[in-house]
Amino acid sequence: MNIAIVGIGLIGGSIGIRLKETNFCDKIIGVEKNEANQKKALQLGLVDEIQTLEEAIQSAKIIVLTVPVDVIMQLLPKILDQVTDQVIIDMGSTKTNILQAIAEHPKRGRYVAAHPMAGTEYSGPEAAIPDLFKDKVMVYVEAFKSDEDAFELADALTEQLEMKTTFMNTEEHDEHTAYVSHISHLTSFALALTVLEKEKSQGRIFELAGSGFQSTVRLAKSSPDMWVPIFKQNRTNVLEVLEEHIKQLQNLYDKLEEEDYSGLHKLIKKSNKIKRIIK
Amino acid sequence: MNIAIVGIGLIGGSIGIRLKETNFCDKIIGVEKNEANQKKALQLGLVDEIQTLEEAIQSAKIIVLTVPVDVIMQLLPKILDQVTDQVIIDMGSTKTNILQAIAEHPKRGRYVAAHPMAGTEYSGPEAAIPDLFKDKVMVYVEAFKSDEDAFELADALTEQLEMKTTFMNTEEHDEHTAYVSHISHLTSFALALTVLEKEKSQGRIFELAGSGFQSTVRLAKSSPDMWVPIFKQNRTNVLEVLEEHIKQLQNLYDKLEEEDYSGLHKLIKKSNKIKRIIK
Repeated sequence: MNIAIVGIGLIGGSIGIRLKETNFCDKIIGVEKNEANQKKALQLGLVDEIQTLEEAIQSAKIIVLTVPVDVIMQLLPKILDQVTDQVIIDMGSTKTNILQAIAEHPKRGRYVAAHPMAGTEYSGPEAAIPDLFKDKVMVYVEAFKSDEDAFELADALTEQLEMKTTFMNTEEHDEHTAYVSHISHLTSFALALTVLEKEKSQGRIFELAGSGFQSTVRLAKSSPDMWVPIFKQNRTNVLEVLEEHIKQLQNLYDKLEEEDYSGLHKLIKKSNKIKRIIK
Repeated sequence: MNIAIVGIGLIGGSIGIRLKETNFCDKIIGVEKNEANQKKALQLGLVDEIQTLEEAIQSAKIIVLTVPVDVIMQLLPKILDQVTDQVIIDMGSTKTNILQAIAEHPKRGRYVAAHPMAGTEYSGPEAAIPDLFKDKVMVYVEAFKSDEDAFELADALTEQLEMKTTFMNTEEHDEHTAYVSHISHLTSFALALTVLEKEKSQGRIFELAGSGFQSTVRLAKSSPDMWVPIFKQNRTNVLEVLEEHIKQLQNLYDKLEEEDYSGLHKLIKKSNKIKRIIK
């Protein structure tokens, strides 16, 4: 069995590098527009060969889409037009628009909507690492709309990645990812902009940056080519959480501005409940 | 030579545990109001014995203040009243108010204002770790106002902690820490509040929380007893950076709201410049 990976960056490359460690498939076919990335993917051994998308659809049993979500939106209906018994699985961070775009497609059943809750702030083939997915969660969205054999094959791939799995409907998925992934990127982008701006007048400002700062700002290294399409596809949810987050910051601001230190203490104490959730 | 550590939590305890690995001093004396923490500090071997502050001032050559900044404000003038040739060094995250409080004290020279750019989101004696300070930066503030021998002894202690050093004036220090430390905590507190609020209506929301979320929210585990006094002491600078950060978030919001995706792309690309700064 051959597997085609469409888009060989952090996610696609990490799937390739991991599958090469297992005996899950005979050949890993890379589909990649960028020539420099084609070369890197071959050199780094992330894929066995490069094919065009049309060739790969014919030669692979599983087609994994790891391109930005706007490109998934474009490609998915076209790929479904060309498949017979192949399985298509995507790794996009948003789902509602993608699922709407192919809801009535006669080959809908060959598609499995998935989202691995894994990643780093780096992008491109050189960012690929074999253990990226290990023990992380793969979310299946509207899995009941996939053909049973298609889902089973997609899930077998997930198993090779050593992931845990969970199931969600699409509204739930897009809302939840806005709250626990998309907003984290926005706060990091904003924090980086805030401090970079200040650096212009205070040259030494980063001298004092410690691990706390690094931790809250590291996602600001993430690629706009990946993230703008996510924010676009999940616009309503992202606007909602961003509005709420700004309100919470404004509330902290007001407490400090009014010198209401017991109110500020209460809010911070309340936020400490996050201890329940994260180690 | 004996060293007294006043306040045995994350910072004080980590200094104790590290100094025990070296031959820098004969005895480490802990000063700690909380009885449970006294016991833990002894059990964990962070200090050799517990004394009252008055006893410790008499028996130690160096007195290290690792209590919250509002307590440093209270204690420092009283301790200066009692010293002869001892050296006092504090580890507080804000400096302007503290330095003002003792500016005219006849024993001003015995005090060295310092701030280790090191920490974790945990607090209390059990959070102490020997390598907390290794390769991190110790900032000396207005070091030229300390007696030369006092500074030399404080710096010898810093060397035992295997830290790098830098020098700043107090306005610069407080402004810089607002931008690269205090704001990171506020964004984390606000993010935790945002998502915890949402959890009430969407129970499964944390299921999808991955490493990106953890990274941006982990500082929300930090103690309000430590942080409220910092925000209070550094109120003007913290309000400034918080206002600027809210503006940046609002700008991202507006771009998305107006569907100005090329504007959003530009902002994110600009924030990526943080790559220059952090690894």
